[in-house]
Amino acid sequence: MTAHSVHAIWLTGLSGAGKTTLACALHAALVARGRSACVLDGDALRCGLCQDLGFSEADRAENVRRVGEVARLLVDAGVTAIVALISPRRADRDRVRGLFTAGQFVEVFVAAPLSICEARDVKGLYARARRGELAEFTGISAPYEPPLAPEIRLCTDAVGVEACVDLVLAHVAGTTGAVGARAGIAGTRAGRYE
Amino acid sequence: MTAHSVHAIWLTGLSGAGKTTLACALHAALVARGRSACVLDGDALRCGLCQDLGFSEADRAENVRRVGEVARLLVDAGVTAIVALISPRRADRDRVRGLFTAGQFVEVFVAAPLSICEARDVKGLYARARRGELAEFTGISAPYEPPLAPEIRLCTDAVGVEACVDLVLAHVAGTTGAVGARAGIAGTRAGRYE
Repeated sequence: MTAHSVHAIWLTGLSGAGKTTLACALHAALVARGRSACVLDGDALRCGLCQDLGFSEADRAENVRRVGEVARLLVDAGVTAIVALISPRRADRDRVRGLFTAGQFVEVFVAAPLSICEARDVKGLYARARRGELAEFTGISAPYEPPLAPEIRLCTDAVGVEACVDLVLAHVAGTTGAVGARAGIAGTRAGRYE
Repeated sequence: MTAHSVHAIWLTGLSGAGKTTLACALHAALVARGRSACVLDGDALRCGLCQDLGFSEADRAENVRRVGEVARLLVDAGVTAIVALISPRRADRDRVRGLFTAGQFVEVFVAAPLSICEARDVKGLYARARRGELAEFTGISAPYEPPLAPEIRLCTDAVGVEACVDLVLAHVAGTTGAVGARAGIAGTRAGRYE
């Protein structure tokens, strides 16, 4: 393993975009390759480390901050941290990026459109948000700021889980630039997608 | 590795008792044996994950809670978590113990007497506390509740770092009962030391 083979893979995107599914698939793929990896899932962490936090702007910022700090601890311990967290604010994500050395932090925009996420509505949260029952629901009643230059952009409405996992693995193996340029669905940090 | 070979090794004790020194030595010993390990040091975490917390009763409880949750995440990821944290309250430590399965949580009482810790005063904190400059300093102006039945008790005023490390390693290898009984300085959870 090289010095850069341990990463924080940060999956950001709307609820229902496929972050947790991807995180679990990535975890399985890394473990199958003999790597240490850990999923930090937003929903799960709200039952543990972040159980004292709500969904206000300040609490969401603190949520992202804590998960970033834990990801940093994991990476320091040689464990690839796979974060599945809406993390709607650019500034919060960028602060987390600042905890890592160049190349260690891999921001992955899980970019399913709102209409798709809402149509899936696996947890029934969009319906509740539309009924006004969830005051601060990202994409409906709270903002989501998409990354301007993520390391990887995954259109999970068009690309299957396995292909998405391969793109991330290719990036962390240091080949994402080529793969992204060829496939047209993964952007390097240098390029903007919108 | 067996299912129980990954532990949370929780070093509790007064400031200056030797928790950080032991944690680093334990870390080195485990890594030398090819194990994944991570030190969660109270002082370091107060610059990161717990930087928003002070030293009030409530903030200390939250500090211990968060570190416990992170230790759990590390253990779940196959990393032995070595925690160096005053964690003065029994109830807070017991809540953390509840996050783990039997045998996973190893409470280590780093039991140097207050007089020794104060004489060492590596950080000059005891002097400041005696001058009244630190309002809530454990052992002086805030309570410390020693464990009633720690897995291991280490008298760091009488036993060297290397011997202490050996005792902890013997415990996590499943032999601490015998070692403790023979050496008279390590207690199992079944026995009380005071």
